[in-house]
Amino acid sequence: MSGAFDPELWRRDFPVLKRQVHGKPLVYFDNANTAQKPQVVIDAVEGYYRDYTANVARAVHSLGEQATAAYEGARDKLARFLNAGSRDQLVFTSGTTQAINLVAYSYALPRLQPGDEILVTQMEHHANIVPWQLVAARTGATVKAAPITPEGELMLDRFEAMLTPAVKLAAVAHVSNVIGTVNPVAQIARLCRSRGVPLLVDGSQACPHQRVDLQAIGCDFYAMTGHKLFGPTGTGALWARREHLQAMPPFFGGGEMIRTVSFDGTVFADPPHKFEAGTPNIAGFIGLGAAVDYIEGIGLERIQAYESELLAYATDALLGVPGLRLFGRAAHKAAVLSFLVEGVHAHDLATLLDHEGVAVRSGHHCAHPLMQFFGVPATARASLAFYNTREEVDAFVRALDKVRKLLA
Amino acid sequence: MSGAFDPELWRRDFPVLKRQVHGKPLVYFDNANTAQKPQVVIDAVEGYYRDYTANVARAVHSLGEQATAAYEGARDKLARFLNAGSRDQLVFTSGTTQAINLVAYSYALPRLQPGDEILVTQMEHHANIVPWQLVAARTGATVKAAPITPEGELMLDRFEAMLTPAVKLAAVAHVSNVIGTVNPVAQIARLCRSRGVPLLVDGSQACPHQRVDLQAIGCDFYAMTGHKLFGPTGTGALWARREHLQAMPPFFGGGEMIRTVSFDGTVFADPPHKFEAGTPNIAGFIGLGAAVDYIEGIGLERIQAYESELLAYATDALLGVPGLRLFGRAAHKAAVLSFLVEGVHAHDLATLLDHEGVAVRSGHHCAHPLMQFFGVPATARASLAFYNTREEVDAFVRALDKVRKLLA
Repeated sequence: MSGAFDPELWRRDFPVLKRQVHGKPLVYFDNANTAQKPQVVIDAVEGYYRDYTANVARAVHSLGEQATAAYEGARDKLARFLNAGSRDQLVFTSGTTQAINLVAYSYALPRLQPGDEILVTQMEHHANIVPWQLVAARTGATVKAAPITPEGELMLDRFEAMLTPAVKLAAVAHVSNVIGTVNPVAQIARLCRSRGVPLLVDGSQACPHQRVDLQAIGCDFYAMTGHKLFGPTGTGALWARREHLQAMPPFFGGGEMIRTVSFDGTVFADPPHKFEAGTPNIAGFIGLGAAVDYIEGIGLERIQAYESELLAYATDALLGVPGLRLFGRAAHKAAVLSFLVEGVHAHDLATLLDHEGVAVRSGHHCAHPLMQFFGVPATARASLAFYNTREEVDAFVRALDKVRKLLA
Repeated sequence: MSGAFDPELWRRDFPVLKRQVHGKPLVYFDNANTAQKPQVVIDAVEGYYRDYTANVARAVHSLGEQATAAYEGARDKLARFLNAGSRDQLVFTSGTTQAINLVAYSYALPRLQPGDEILVTQMEHHANIVPWQLVAARTGATVKAAPITPEGELMLDRFEAMLTPAVKLAAVAHVSNVIGTVNPVAQIARLCRSRGVPLLVDGSQACPHQRVDLQAIGCDFYAMTGHKLFGPTGTGALWARREHLQAMPPFFGGGEMIRTVSFDGTVFADPPHKFEAGTPNIAGFIGLGAAVDYIEGIGLERIQAYESELLAYATDALLGVPGLRLFGRAAHKAAVLSFLVEGVHAHDLATLLDHEGVAVRSGHHCAHPLMQFFGVPATARASLAFYNTREEVDAFVRALDKVRKLLA
């Protein structure tokens, strides 16, 4: 089945993959930072701007109806894609960061008391740490982090032991953006539910690479982003249990999130619109709908199987590079490879790889605590997608070899 | 000078203006809802997705540098466009709504005490009412509204009288989205400064239609939106005085708004990045930069003069329609015409005008208190832009006549 997966077929759909960098064919290995967009997504965005630009929900004219149908159609598509239960449980946001901050401000802030705790893990992205620190600082709560193993796996027993009655919310990455660890979120959700602790899952890095079934996971909140899912920038969503969305006060105030406004009192709309004040990123969400269609057309199961093979191939290849240290060797891992080469700064690695046409990210990857755990200030990171190939991995390793010899 | 202004020349740049609706040429008079996009904006968005999609600030590779240069270049363009003083005073947001909510949560929420007041006006959009109500509800403060005249002008003496020591923030629209009133914001800013009250100006409807000079206005905060300025959806900005941006705590927590993160404490980045957590709407802001270039190429002074003539022409024409009531007759007015026809519901007006190819908005225009002031549940609204023409106004009035006779 996965043998039939031909990345060359899909590569044709991505115009940027045809380009050269410094005279070399682009090898784009920075997919965990943002993913490339297929032509159908570009066309969907352009189509809205060219043919039916209008605001949504606010207009009865033809353009407005066409725009609203496309925009709300994207919500239907994403709801099916994530098995969301109901489209009304999907709040459109500007990305994962806004989704998590929405929960921080509307769910956590009004509930937290001095002494309360929010439990995260050592491998979280700053977007799943700093919002909790901000609301903790305002309420006297604290943020604590469950430890991980040297391989980069969450210590589940320690996590469970830290789920004390003081914990009012747990927040865990589905997939680590730095080391690719896939956390057992369904199991974590069962643990949390047995203790009565609501769980937020940061799905930013999961959705593009594996089937996300929200009914099967059983968490309370799930945050995702569109631009990593081959969709436009400035798009994302928060999924939440219906009872939370109903109980939570609104976050942003503004147009279209109200039923009536007066200076004596304002009545809010039902979810999801209660949380969607203002004109949304209409073109972006229409593009995200096209991205979902595109990915469904390939099949996430096939994508996952192919990326898993490609990860094994790339891991073997990297381990053959002298002096290379690979960070994160979890048993369940997405195709993300963080590494350093002895004596070479991550930044220099990325800069010199770019001269060979290879785009990787270097730095702390918005995950300082994980860097501290590994005892390094930064790593280089190659993050793969289904349009990447073994040939690109080979080119990457050849480039790495060249860089290594240059700097040795 | 304005005689030389030929809208037909500019219309060619807007692909959507070539289309038909119900077999009639589109007359797009819903510009205050969202504006159409010129080809250069569509191309800028498409160019990013096609040629150099990458995340900004986070990557040292060529695509990342190209994307960052284009994205931060848009900030330079917008800063010059608004005479912002410094690019660092311009925080990119998803739109005016987020900009105002940022001030509500980061500036007002930590400062407000029971008994404090926020002063707005009767003509505000919900985006400049509800955020203040939300933070007032959390702090024991109250929101009060300065009255307007039957012509739809702010009663400045009443506003001044309401600027008591209890007022900790004033928030006023630059231009009313419903009736087009242009408020004397520089004068209001002087009043506010003389009483030590910080002033936020909601510039959502001003930027596309007149020169906005932030140094000349002298307010504390200015919120604007990109999609009404012929730019992409999901873009906007908050300008603020440097001392406010430095003193305000961050709003969203997440990536790229920090210097260091640890579970012992987090150090935040300098403005504007302190307020820009997460991957921004990169394509959108690159498109907004192109929109600013495009508008500068025409010249806002010319646009304002032309729209002013067109408004006078349209006002005369509408006043000739039997049974038509026009809302808002301010001396200084942008080209926004709210109206009702005796015995016809606003919704029916808009629906039937659409059948004649004319797109207007009907409803409360996210301004319930203003509707209450006029004693109507809704109006129809024609809002013009520089690419609209006298011929379109004529077609609109003919369509209105047809609708009126149909429903009489």
